[in-house]
Amino acid sequence: MEILENITENIIELKTEDVIELVCADHYVDARKILVTMNEADIALLFEEIPEEKILRVFRMLPKNLAAESFSYMKSELQQFIVESITEREIVSIVDEMFMDDTVDFLEEMPANVVKKVLKVTDPETRKIINQLLKYPDDSAGSIMTTEYVDLKKEMTVRDAISHIRATGVDKETINTCYVMDEKRHLEGTVSIRKLILSQPDEIISDIMTEEPMYIYTHDDQETGAHYFKKYDLLSMPVVDAEKRLVGIITIDDIVDVIEQETTEDIEMMAGMTPSDKSYIEEGVIETFKKRIIWLLLLMLTATFTGGILATFETSLAVYPALVAFIPMLMGTAGNAGGQSSVAVIRSLALDEIEFRDILKISWKEARVAAVSGAVMALVCFFKVMFIDSLYTHGIDIVVALVVSAAIFSTVVLAKVVGCTMPMIAKKIGLDPAVMASPFITTIVDALSLLIYFAIVSMVLPM
Amino acid sequence: MEILENITENIIELKTEDVIELVCADHYVDARKILVTMNEADIALLFEEIPEEKILRVFRMLPKNLAAESFSYMKSELQQFIVESITEREIVSIVDEMFMDDTVDFLEEMPANVVKKVLKVTDPETRKIINQLLKYPDDSAGSIMTTEYVDLKKEMTVRDAISHIRATGVDKETINTCYVMDEKRHLEGTVSIRKLILSQPDEIISDIMTEEPMYIYTHDDQETGAHYFKKYDLLSMPVVDAEKRLVGIITIDDIVDVIEQETTEDIEMMAGMTPSDKSYIEEGVIETFKKRIIWLLLLMLTATFTGGILATFETSLAVYPALVAFIPMLMGTAGNAGGQSSVAVIRSLALDEIEFRDILKISWKEARVAAVSGAVMALVCFFKVMFIDSLYTHGIDIVVALVVSAAIFSTVVLAKVVGCTMPMIAKKIGLDPAVMASPFITTIVDALSLLIYFAIVSMVLPM
Repeated sequence: MEILENITENIIELKTEDVIELVCADHYVDARKILVTMNEADIALLFEEIPEEKILRVFRMLPKNLAAESFSYMKSELQQFIVESITEREIVSIVDEMFMDDTVDFLEEMPANVVKKVLKVTDPETRKIINQLLKYPDDSAGSIMTTEYVDLKKEMTVRDAISHIRATGVDKETINTCYVMDEKRHLEGTVSIRKLILSQPDEIISDIMTEEPMYIYTHDDQETGAHYFKKYDLLSMPVVDAEKRLVGIITIDDIVDVIEQETTEDIEMMAGMTPSDKSYIEEGVIETFKKRIIWLLLLMLTATFTGGILATFETSLAVYPALVAFIPMLMGTAGNAGGQSSVAVIRSLALDEIEFRDILKISWKEARVAAVSGAVMALVCFFKVMFIDSLYTHGIDIVVALVVSAAIFSTVVLAKVVGCTMPMIAKKIGLDPAVMASPFITTIVDALSLLIYFAIVSMVLPM
Repeated sequence: MEILENITENIIELKTEDVIELVCADHYVDARKILVTMNEADIALLFEEIPEEKILRVFRMLPKNLAAESFSYMKSELQQFIVESITEREIVSIVDEMFMDDTVDFLEEMPANVVKKVLKVTDPETRKIINQLLKYPDDSAGSIMTTEYVDLKKEMTVRDAISHIRATGVDKETINTCYVMDEKRHLEGTVSIRKLILSQPDEIISDIMTEEPMYIYTHDDQETGAHYFKKYDLLSMPVVDAEKRLVGIITIDDIVDVIEQETTEDIEMMAGMTPSDKSYIEEGVIETFKKRIIWLLLLMLTATFTGGILATFETSLAVYPALVAFIPMLMGTAGNAGGQSSVAVIRSLALDEIEFRDILKISWKEARVAAVSGAVMALVCFFKVMFIDSLYTHGIDIVVALVVSAAIFSTVVLAKVVGCTMPMIAKKIGLDPAVMASPFITTIVDALSLLIYFAIVSMVLPM
């Protein structure tokens, strides 16, 4: 990522600074003039820099729809602060303007008393839908869908359909794809707005609709949804219940968030952290501590085995103290080589590029990469040991250099093969492959590298 | 990622198997009947499983538009195989049906002779556009844009605009957003199809268009584009040249690919690999080798310092051989603790959640997390050393246990603070923060952990 040095960004920054200055000087009328020209996402960010005692004042002077739209982009704490301070009437007007999925996203982060306050004032129909949406499990397709979509009947003409959209479209999250349902709300097909515009007014929907569209179930994992969006370049996707009745749609903007969130979870797991729904910046000290300590402890305890191996070979080390100096290099190389392979395979699995059945193909590829890498590493290592390490370590001769180089070669090969197979096996037995990344693999290959090292030592050097 | 066990997926798999069976048995007519009901992305995947000698036959029996659409989803090797085998006339028909950005994506991966063959047969107008698009640098906004968008004039009425879309929309990649330009093609505004549908036929475009829309320059980084799409929930975005003339648009489907690609690059860098544009599965052995060897060598050489530290303390180790057994645990913990912090910060930087100016806030948070984690680790470590390690290592007493625990505590604190600050400093000085992930941080904190260890040893234990 590089710093964004774009004219558009600069204008936004200037406007933001001006508004904050004007607000601080109580020039609200002028501040409003700038605010109404700004994007809702930028306004939401701007609110974070306004002094607390002026937030409400500024929020109230925004036009109704801009207030609601900015509200849906705000961080939870800010949303809570505003909702706890404004009147019931104002809450109603925000909820009315917001899309259903944004309302649910907002309520999911609120404490129970705020949820209650909001639900109390919304109309019974909306309340019922919100309550239903709140019930879907986290990470399910149902939890990210919206209920505001355009519904058509297959007997309609294109002309009817367009009038229907004109009459109801204002409140829909998207009109780019319309959904065709029968009397019992079973999904029968989809029609894009493009198809409607390009068709003749007298054509019948059932003749132009896409039959058997892709859909997912409310309880499917949101990642399943992301998979379809990526595979088929979708912009939206219908969500159905167990009886295949249409209950909502998922739009691409929410899927982009899902992709980012799932990747963050993968990355956290790869670095030995328990993933959570909160972003790093939102987590408190104790939350971050909890995410990390289990892995630190687990890996510390497994390192006992590696320590045990060292202890077992105490005698060899006593005879050849120079051998100790190469342990960090060997273990480091093992971890790096294994980490590279495991992370490459984990990412490839996450992107659906490879499957378990490719395990032989992948191992063979990694083995060849490892052979070449190992050979180069061993060669460089040999010269390094002979000409650099010998400067400050006593007792290094060509035999030691050869032993260390041989250990490096074997370690790289073993680490890479272990590194690439473990994530695939993890996936096969139903574990998350990301668990098999650097910290875990490192611990395993650390131990292996020492075993190899001392095996070679005891074979070659006289004890 | 979990295995997708969805009815839709099953149907696709059944259809794919049926088609392949029918094709292998030369029942092309029946195969075609199933093929025409399938999605182009699935057909592209299906081609990978068809015996090579039948690929052309199957490709030719697809309806023209389905052939072109499947073609744009195919892997490069398959595209090359087909283009090298079909006639010039067939190439023209594919290129005509394909969207400009897909054509360019396809040509970018082809060897020069194939590009030449394709360009030779396309009409001069298309050839000119393709040549221009091919010139944009990799990873620039220009390289992922398409030139097929709907252009409107601001004097048009809504009625005019809709007729214009009906007349030209078939060939456009999207009609969901239309772009308003003056005579010299300067971008003046955008109008969504929703706005057009919901407005009165006599309204004038200039009255309903969004003025000052977000745009980016052809030479901006594609990541800048991704940043805007995420921040403002966009579906498409105009791309302009230095004179602010509209030259193309970027659509969300391409941005989803950019996000995945940039994340893969970050992950590769975090695991000590040089990122490349190719996916893991497409890379050859030598390419993968090249991506990895530099880092392996670099880290091996830096591990020399760590080895040097060990060599320096040879005397202490000779007096207390039991101390050697704790080195892997200490170094492992240092790497894990530092890796957790650095990866959390790198991801947070990539998601634009934090900036360099947050460095004190982040360090303070990490220091507190580290203090709590370090305390717990030290406590567990103390009991582990006393009751587990003492079983197989001679010469462990309470002083050794205390020394090791103190070293663990200090190591965790130091590793976490170093781990969180390094990526932020890297970003500040213009490096990619992802470089400061596990392998690099591990090497640094490995050395630091040994220095701490031996410092405590020489303070506490008599030499």
